[in-house]
Amino acid sequence: MNRTDEIRPVYAEGREVVMLDQRLLPEREAFMLLSTVDEVCEAIRTMVVRGAPAIGIAAAFGAALAVGEAQKCAPCDCFSSFEKSLEKLKATRPTAVNLEWALNRVREYWLSSRNLDASAREKGAWELAQRILDDDVAANRALGMHGAELIPDGSNVLTHCNAGALATGGYGSALGVIRAAVEQGKKVHVWVDETRPRLQGAKLTAWELQRDGINHTLISDNMAASLMKAGRIDLAVTGADRIASNGDTANKIGTYSVAVNCEKHGLPFYVAAPESTIDRSIATGQEIPIEEREASEVTHVGETRICPEGVRIYNPAFDVTDAELIGAIVTEKGIHRPPFAFGAD
Amino acid sequence: MNRTDEIRPVYAEGREVVMLDQRLLPEREAFMLLSTVDEVCEAIRTMVVRGAPAIGIAAAFGAALAVGEAQKCAPCDCFSSFEKSLEKLKATRPTAVNLEWALNRVREYWLSSRNLDASAREKGAWELAQRILDDDVAANRALGMHGAELIPDGSNVLTHCNAGALATGGYGSALGVIRAAVEQGKKVHVWVDETRPRLQGAKLTAWELQRDGINHTLISDNMAASLMKAGRIDLAVTGADRIASNGDTANKIGTYSVAVNCEKHGLPFYVAAPESTIDRSIATGQEIPIEEREASEVTHVGETRICPEGVRIYNPAFDVTDAELIGAIVTEKGIHRPPFAFGAD
Repeated sequence: MNRTDEIRPVYAEGREVVMLDQRLLPEREAFMLLSTVDEVCEAIRTMVVRGAPAIGIAAAFGAALAVGEAQKCAPCDCFSSFEKSLEKLKATRPTAVNLEWALNRVREYWLSSRNLDASAREKGAWELAQRILDDDVAANRALGMHGAELIPDGSNVLTHCNAGALATGGYGSALGVIRAAVEQGKKVHVWVDETRPRLQGAKLTAWELQRDGINHTLISDNMAASLMKAGRIDLAVTGADRIASNGDTANKIGTYSVAVNCEKHGLPFYVAAPESTIDRSIATGQEIPIEEREASEVTHVGETRICPEGVRIYNPAFDVTDAELIGAIVTEKGIHRPPFAFGAD
Repeated sequence: MNRTDEIRPVYAEGREVVMLDQRLLPEREAFMLLSTVDEVCEAIRTMVVRGAPAIGIAAAFGAALAVGEAQKCAPCDCFSSFEKSLEKLKATRPTAVNLEWALNRVREYWLSSRNLDASAREKGAWELAQRILDDDVAANRALGMHGAELIPDGSNVLTHCNAGALATGGYGSALGVIRAAVEQGKKVHVWVDETRPRLQGAKLTAWELQRDGINHTLISDNMAASLMKAGRIDLAVTGADRIASNGDTANKIGTYSVAVNCEKHGLPFYVAAPESTIDRSIATGQEIPIEEREASEVTHVGETRICPEGVRIYNPAFDVTDAELIGAIVTEKGIHRPPFAFGAD
């Protein structure tokens, strides 16, 4: 993968975006080469890449492509073409705030680089996207180091969905915390929620942990509560798709139930995410838009239909965990403890 | 089905046991004809039939077959052959207490029918099994009527797994309560947990509700908590596989998490089951054996593998919900309210 041993879900090669097609994991490691904004939009929408930080990075590279495409337009259409591309990229997934954050950074660059010639301007955009990627990996290593303090030696850690290298630039947020604890020599066993409906835990987290030789066991989401009651889980850590100023956290559907069960059993529930996941423009989680996805994600697993034809489905991709259920939010800046007040930073 | 419009998962035709093969639902309604104890054991073990009351009924018919088979042995081996068949039937599934209960009833009949000739004795065993089936359906209609009081008009009811006609002799326990409320003219909408890993909610409950025209929506198990937070669920009702004297209730894995989430959101959690599900020989749920099933139930959905090869799996089929989380246990005798003390009955 990416000529190193590390998992890298999105990166640049020349003026093309390379994406590991996560829809094919764990069966196959296949990469897509994307050379237009539309191709990047389609890849984000169809979840070739997923995970809030990785979506942000993919969007940044998409925006770099947009700079090149816009500059081919007549000068008078140039900015509106660029803006249209950003709008298309933004519309691909509504919940992850990193997407907006990354697009805003490239937009600011565009506005501040009018004096550059076309070639230099395009080059600068690709360098910015690369910096966003590199910064994310560095942030994950930093937050992993901070978060590892929260993982006692010998602990059993529950995680939900995939907040691993695959969900980020690399290394991972929740899995970054676990990786850092393991690198420090701690013994850790990970309970992996399979994470219906798209099974990112079963397909992606199990694949990452197996690849890195980290001890783990896969369960159906609804098994975690009884493991907690039996004393077989010590804490839970997940990623985040958007964190409001008060600490309310949107993350993969099912995260809220993990947090409620942690509260019931007196176990800490932690969130690990880079600062770019914090949306200081909103006060609480009630302002976070929750994406609903197509019924087929619930009705089918692979080619297998699991329910009768014609059954009505509800399929929200995310839920919001109230700040009061969160024991700590770990970012590259350190461990934030409640009460959270990110708006005041 | 069974020449009536009602769903009947197990019944007798002559000296054969007919079982609807629930593994093929909702795609196909296919029936198996079983004429030996071994065939019935295999059918219970492989979940052709499932659901505690239906397992009890299947075992009763299996025991009737055992009477016929035992009487073909030399007189001196007759009783030990019968006992061996009961042991085989009992070993098929460890958690459902209705299995033991039904076998004990046929065993008592065997011991009290020594004076009958072989043909009359066999006939009596089949009549007893039929009575166990008929009594179960009657119990479900009675408990449905009692339980319907707990379902307000216009309510949104969450259920987990399948405690319907398919899980019983007919009509259902949890779904019996819902059917009775609907028959009384109440408007009810059912949220159906898909119920990983075997998806009995998606495959069986959705099929039953669709067949009966009862309004419902299918969700992944981990979505229920956020629906509760949003005020879109008013109460939950499930079946039971074994109820201890203090009211602790073993039921399909995931039930405990439903109950914890109900408590968190101030919603009533109800259990509906015939009295035969109550195990007065045990004080608490800690004494209930929890069956662990094979990894393939988690690793595969149909032919689709959902995780990497070699991943370790934990797959308990049931969990225990503490009595303190249960607002009422509905049986054919009425609505039991906490504190429960079934041992004292």
